[in-house]
Amino acid sequence: MTEFAELDTPCAIVDLDCVERNLRTFQEYCDEHNIALRPHIKTHKITDFALQQIAIGAKGITCQKIGEAEVMADAGIGDILITYNIIGARKLARLRRLAERIDQLRVVADNETVLKGLSTAFSDAQKPIEILVECDTGAGRCGVQSPAEAAWLAKVANELPGLKFVGLMTYPPGDGTAKVETFFRDAMAECAKFGLECLVRSSGGTPDMWQAHKAPVVTEYRIGTYIYNDKSVMARGGCLEEDCALRVLTEVVSLPAPGRAIIDAGSKVLTSDLFGLEHFGYVVGHADVTVKSLSEEHGILTFDPATHPFEIGQRVQIIPNHVCVVSNMFDYVQLCRNGIFENPAFVAARGKVV
Amino acid sequence: MTEFAELDTPCAIVDLDCVERNLRTFQEYCDEHNIALRPHIKTHKITDFALQQIAIGAKGITCQKIGEAEVMADAGIGDILITYNIIGARKLARLRRLAERIDQLRVVADNETVLKGLSTAFSDAQKPIEILVECDTGAGRCGVQSPAEAAWLAKVANELPGLKFVGLMTYPPGDGTAKVETFFRDAMAECAKFGLECLVRSSGGTPDMWQAHKAPVVTEYRIGTYIYNDKSVMARGGCLEEDCALRVLTEVVSLPAPGRAIIDAGSKVLTSDLFGLEHFGYVVGHADVTVKSLSEEHGILTFDPATHPFEIGQRVQIIPNHVCVVSNMFDYVQLCRNGIFENPAFVAARGKVV
Repeated sequence: MTEFAELDTPCAIVDLDCVERNLRTFQEYCDEHNIALRPHIKTHKITDFALQQIAIGAKGITCQKIGEAEVMADAGIGDILITYNIIGARKLARLRRLAERIDQLRVVADNETVLKGLSTAFSDAQKPIEILVECDTGAGRCGVQSPAEAAWLAKVANELPGLKFVGLMTYPPGDGTAKVETFFRDAMAECAKFGLECLVRSSGGTPDMWQAHKAPVVTEYRIGTYIYNDKSVMARGGCLEEDCALRVLTEVVSLPAPGRAIIDAGSKVLTSDLFGLEHFGYVVGHADVTVKSLSEEHGILTFDPATHPFEIGQRVQIIPNHVCVVSNMFDYVQLCRNGIFENPAFVAARGKVV
Repeated sequence: MTEFAELDTPCAIVDLDCVERNLRTFQEYCDEHNIALRPHIKTHKITDFALQQIAIGAKGITCQKIGEAEVMADAGIGDILITYNIIGARKLARLRRLAERIDQLRVVADNETVLKGLSTAFSDAQKPIEILVECDTGAGRCGVQSPAEAAWLAKVANELPGLKFVGLMTYPPGDGTAKVETFFRDAMAECAKFGLECLVRSSGGTPDMWQAHKAPVVTEYRIGTYIYNDKSVMARGGCLEEDCALRVLTEVVSLPAPGRAIIDAGSKVLTSDLFGLEHFGYVVGHADVTVKSLSEEHGILTFDPATHPFEIGQRVQIIPNHVCVVSNMFDYVQLCRNGIFENPAFVAARGKVV
């Protein structure tokens, strides 16, 4: 147990009651609307939180990289979707080993080369690996461009040894609920022409989380940020300040000139992610103070030069713009319940980029 | 020894011949101009590179955080400047322990509160801790605002038990060489009024590295990026492409639409640092390809839709905008000499934000 005063800054503090509330609220929403919840662990990267998500009703988890999935499998999680095109012999061999030690592993693919690689790796596996075809419903990242292309790729997947096509996956654009509904419905119709059923229709994203039920075609929702929330979710009306479970605790180290304070959290903690917002985070209790710029170890706060909101050594909490990337900057986060700090949590999947 | 084909992407590859050339070239420049070189280890965060910098002539090293300095002291480095206002009992106790096990530890201060904390921690130390007064010569970060304030703070430092004022330190603004010269000269004159000598006048920064001799008042130069260089240094004319020693090796994982390719390096590797540039890095060998945007694990490359520069699985090297922050995203970097990969180097000071 650590006292608040003993916490070294900068650090990330996480309110466990808030985490629990955030998880339960969206789980209840998904239960009510009969949507399978598959949280993305990229936001917290902490095994205990993934287990907690499962314990209260999540179907399984989502990971982006094999390294993340391996960490979660080690913790006993048996149902993992990796939403990434996996290529190359080394990664495919790891994927095969992972598949052999958990109950259910699914991956996505948006092109034939990826499918052929997966097939080579799984052709002699005891059970086929389940494939979702990734669809670009407007976000402009990965994904096939049309429902017809989705169906063609589904057919390729289904015909290759070691693979089993099970459905569709997308990361939608902002306000993309209607686009997902249309694309998935059309892709299902195209797939039906080949006799293929899309059992799983997986969408996701925190920005439109409360709209998930408005795309009834969706059977599964992937969401990460909701566990902590952040300034971007607040700005989009998805949560209130008190729903932001992770804050960066920092200290004022310099007051060089009127209207300027320097804190000990810079881009190595808050990151340079603007995430469509202005400035680099929300200063709790100081709505009129701006996190103007960051260097690696310093944040520059600006405010009305006639005011004196800070002293040297004063502690300041920042709600980051984009909390997922902030998680990735810490080896540990400090867990707090009712103002008492428990043992810090190891961010086990931090830095797993491979 | 690892073959190139066995490297898992994304990863950071570092050309050791290029590193050596970069280090030697600027060391020779400093030797020629009688400037003490004190490299900032924040760029590489690797103990062997710090030792190499010392071995070829650097006076000591610069760190930003105590945690970085501890790692470097563990590796046997005995002369460290921490360019950070250090506050709080826990950090000060660590600083004291660090001072007791290396030859020379210096820190900066830009306000009286910091000096009083340092004095409390060092008042009964065997030898005083050496203090540089940090000056804001226009960069608008930390630092006293005027030469008179610098002298006043120098006097405070000199009168407090456990402290010894030894000089001035600044991180200059771009094109700040003349400003540093003027500020430091004036501050020295102000200090002289109190009978105080500024033995050390420490400036730094890669952007103006080749102008260092044009501020002859400067006795010591702190510089980090020069070991690897990056797109920002290239853009400012400070180096050529072949001088960029660290590249992010990534693979094309998706070609969803004409003019768009997706690589497996996103903001968790390249970071969102624009550093005054447009887009997120330079694609080696593809000057006409843009790293348009990043999500956490994906980079989106855009190019003329009539062209087909990439295949799925193709390896692409990216020179990052700002290499220091990219170093911080990896636990290891891959070292290469003449195309042969040696044992990877542990980025020992990664993530040391406290």
